Amino acid sequence: MFESAEIGHAIDKETYDAEVPALREALLEAQFELRQKAKFPVIVLINGVEGAGKGETVKLLNEWMDPRLIEVRTFDQQTDEELSRPPAWRYWRMLPAKGRMGVFFGNWYSQMLQGRVHGEIKDPRLDQAINGAERLEKMLCDEGALIFKFWFHLSKKQMKDRLKSLQDDPLHSWRISPLDWQQSQTYDKFVKYGERVLRRTSRDYAPWHVIEGVDPHYRSLTVGRILLEGLQNALSRQPLKSTQVNAAPLPTAVDQLSLLDSLDMTQHLDKDDYEEQLITEQARLAGLLRDKRMRKHALVAVFEGNDAAGKGGAIRRVAAALDPRQYSIVPIAAPTEDERAQPYLWRFWRHIPARGKFTIFDRSWYGRVLVERVEGFCQPTDWLRAYSEINDFEEQLADARVIVVKFWLAIDKDTQLERFQAREAIPFKRFKITEDDWRNRDKWGDYRAAVGDMVDRTSTEVAPWTLVEANDKRWARVKVLRTINRALETAFERSDKHDKKQKKDKK
Amino acid sequence: MFESAEIGHAIDKETYDAEVPALREALLEAQFELRQKAKFPVIVLINGVEGAGKGETVKLLNEWMDPRLIEVRTFDQQTDEELSRPPAWRYWRMLPAKGRMGVFFGNWYSQMLQGRVHGEIKDPRLDQAINGAERLEKMLCDEGALIFKFWFHLSKKQMKDRLKSLQDDPLHSWRISPLDWQQSQTYDKFVKYGERVLRRTSRDYAPWHVIEGVDPHYRSLTVGRILLEGLQNALSRQPLKSTQVNAAPLPTAVDQLSLLDSLDMTQHLDKDDYEEQLITEQARLAGLLRDKRMRKHALVAVFEGNDAAGKGGAIRRVAAALDPRQYSIVPIAAPTEDERAQPYLWRFWRHIPARGKFTIFDRSWYGRVLVERVEGFCQPTDWLRAYSEINDFEEQLADARVIVVKFWLAIDKDTQLERFQAREAIPFKRFKITEDDWRNRDKWGDYRAAVGDMVDRTSTEVAPWTLVEANDKRWARVKVLRTINRALETAFERSDKHDKKQKKDKK
Repeated sequence: MFESAEIGHAIDKETYDAEVPALREALLEAQFELRQKAKFPVIVLINGVEGAGKGETVKLLNEWMDPRLIEVRTFDQQTDEELSRPPAWRYWRMLPAKGRMGVFFGNWYSQMLQGRVHGEIKDPRLDQAINGAERLEKMLCDEGALIFKFWFHLSKKQMKDRLKSLQDDPLHSWRISPLDWQQSQTYDKFVKYGERVLRRTSRDYAPWHVIEGVDPHYRSLTVGRILLEGLQNALSRQPLKSTQVNAAPLPTAVDQLSLLDSLDMTQHLDKDDYEEQLITEQARLAGLLRDKRMRKHALVAVFEGNDAAGKGGAIRRVAAALDPRQYSIVPIAAPTEDERAQPYLWRFWRHIPARGKFTIFDRSWYGRVLVERVEGFCQPTDWLRAYSEINDFEEQLADARVIVVKFWLAIDKDTQLERFQAREAIPFKRFKITEDDWRNRDKWGDYRAAVGDMVDRTSTEVAPWTLVEANDKRWARVKVLRTINRALETAFERSDKHDKKQKKDKK
Repeated sequence: MFESAEIGHAIDKETYDAEVPALREALLEAQFELRQKAKFPVIVLINGVEGAGKGETVKLLNEWMDPRLIEVRTFDQQTDEELSRPPAWRYWRMLPAKGRMGVFFGNWYSQMLQGRVHGEIKDPRLDQAINGAERLEKMLCDEGALIFKFWFHLSKKQMKDRLKSLQDDPLHSWRISPLDWQQSQTYDKFVKYGERVLRRTSRDYAPWHVIEGVDPHYRSLTVGRILLEGLQNALSRQPLKSTQVNAAPLPTAVDQLSLLDSLDMTQHLDKDDYEEQLITEQARLAGLLRDKRMRKHALVAVFEGNDAAGKGGAIRRVAAALDPRQYSIVPIAAPTEDERAQPYLWRFWRHIPARGKFTIFDRSWYGRVLVERVEGFCQPTDWLRAYSEINDFEEQLADARVIVVKFWLAIDKDTQLERFQAREAIPFKRFKITEDDWRNRDKWGDYRAAVGDMVDRTSTEVAPWTLVEANDKRWARVKVLRTINRALETAFERSDKHDKKQKKDKK
């Protein structure tokens, strides 16, 4: 969920300086129109990692826009007034009126996260708080509010560097927060529970935007653009129909940098290394699947990737080492008649493995946010809600001890062309290449954006994505096998710990 | 929430026999159209109290409709197959296809309720399960499904009588369930947690329908009618716009009997009794509000009622005994400009009392589901979602130890006419009667239906409605005071218990 915000997004000074004046003007104009029409309020939630530029961004927005129409609210310690009333009262009294913008700095999310990180509440209570936030936001959206939720992110290393530089700077040392961010444990917990909160509360009517905080130019421009697009979008849709809500659209990276760019596509293995490593990993997988701890788990592997990225070959290498009674491969193509008569997740639920079993999906439920999105086979509202539906689905799998590994096999455009041409030249491979493949290739950029959003919104602690550099097939195959093996080992270790703890608790 | 299902709804045999043939025919026709169009599936959830006719109703539906298009699914003990997969798998594999109807007898609600009643899970876990059910149903509705949720209800006495008669009947003795319903504690818990589940999961896209189960004619006809209306409604709205869902409309009682009918409108007090009781209750209230346990609570009293039902007089009698620094009266009329610029609940949040304080609302947030609904001041989707928003709101109040009492002051139509005429005759009371009042009177039936739905959907354990027979003003005033006093005493006792338990736990 935070992967795309750790890849070093940056905008150089010239580009920034060139872009800002137009952005400021457009923002002011949108703000003015918002005021004139006064049809809905705008609520901006600011959350995220310490030192990632939350305060600076809010300061900047006040400089860029008309501060008379912005109310910045900081919710820190509750006042006596607030303590003597229901917890939500403090937010209600500060809600911006229609036509105005409220920036909530420290909000319902900060409270529940701090509570969880400090161990004052446990997961079920956190979930109750999450649910309360969802209900509040749903109601606000149904009442017309436009909600932006920003999560400012830094990798652990970026955060430590940043805190250090702030500490050394006498002008900024007041910024060090009460939460002891110096401890790396705090960061880990904050990000872990933050991910849970984002996963659950990123809904189509109020999605989260994760912003990499390390470069001020990138950060500021990104937030400004998302606000602008969202505002313009909502203003143009007034008046709303009774069943519509003002949702902010998904952002595109202002520096055009995507997680896919961060892959080192030159990764490769020579033949000898490959053969040795392949056999080692295959044997390891066979062993792990025979492990008696596997009886408590099931395994699901999802293969997605560019056309001709080598999904089939990778799947064969995985399957090669295994007892056919233990695994099954489910190829996902256009839905059958039976499947079209059901909700889109139904055809995947059908194939969920029982404990001890392993299912390989050759393409998957992610078709909804890839091909169906790009080709327009479903409505934007449908694929937008699919992210949270998929997260819910995978969370249910994880809760039932199903280990979920997901692979995106990435090749570059040239490699794809070579492979397409090679396939057309070999008679028995010709069936593998169709008109569709060439058509998809024309939409390379759209697919790329869809993959980026997919990973950002569905790579979660319970079911992370693994991006596989697949220009070299050998490298890709070994990486796939190794990833599955590590996932199994991690899961087994976690079960061991869990069982030990349970035994101990019983005593 | 269950009040309307304990008032002895019944349909006589002649009416029933006269109605059934047309209903059956219409149901068959709707079912056929559903099949032909095959645009959406229908899911019917059957829940409720033991002995309230769940099984009989399902049996009857199969007789009335074409059983080839109905799949009845009983979810009892999980099978081995099911136990080895995520819990939701058993429901997914049984989902009806588009064009078909699935009757889920024992479903996600039964499972969570049994778990809670037997103490296997506590409230936070129950809330997690509730949240899971909500997400599942929201997704199904977004995918086009039409969901009916029926709760078959009996009062405790009705249930005991029913179980006894079933036990004595050799043909029916197999019906006695594994849950030990003979124990009155089981009933209490089941209804208590059932109410929590219904309150949380009755959303505009999939509302609950509570059916009184004691009379088979009433029960069958009601279920049949709700199904028919819901089906016809959804069929006529195909194709759905991308933001619409197939929601079942609110039912009207097939026997025209409403909770308001169950009031004994002849209740009255003579002058001496009134004066004595009034003073006693006023003194009691003053004492309770001075009680030191009041420092941990706040009190909210909501007054709604027919025009000229005597709200003002009742409020004055409540206020009379109190220190003006401790209470405030908030009259609710048309919203101000500031208030119109906010979500509709905002103007009530403004006036939520701090701990130790008492706020009296002369009309309230219920305007949304009364005058705004009847006069068309808001869209049906708006007032339909308001029931759950209000329940969420009041739950937040209750969680913060705000005691909420809600009064509907009911008078009959003749009494209202007398009072209107009397007011017009007395110069200083003439301002109290307006054109609006006469107009509202023309919509007596619409308001009556709105009041019924309001009480059914928002009378909860945490904030119950009290219906006050107000033809006699004396009776009404004393009943109001007494109800407030009882609510305070109950809350104080509960706090005492809670505090004692906490002290004990600490030791």
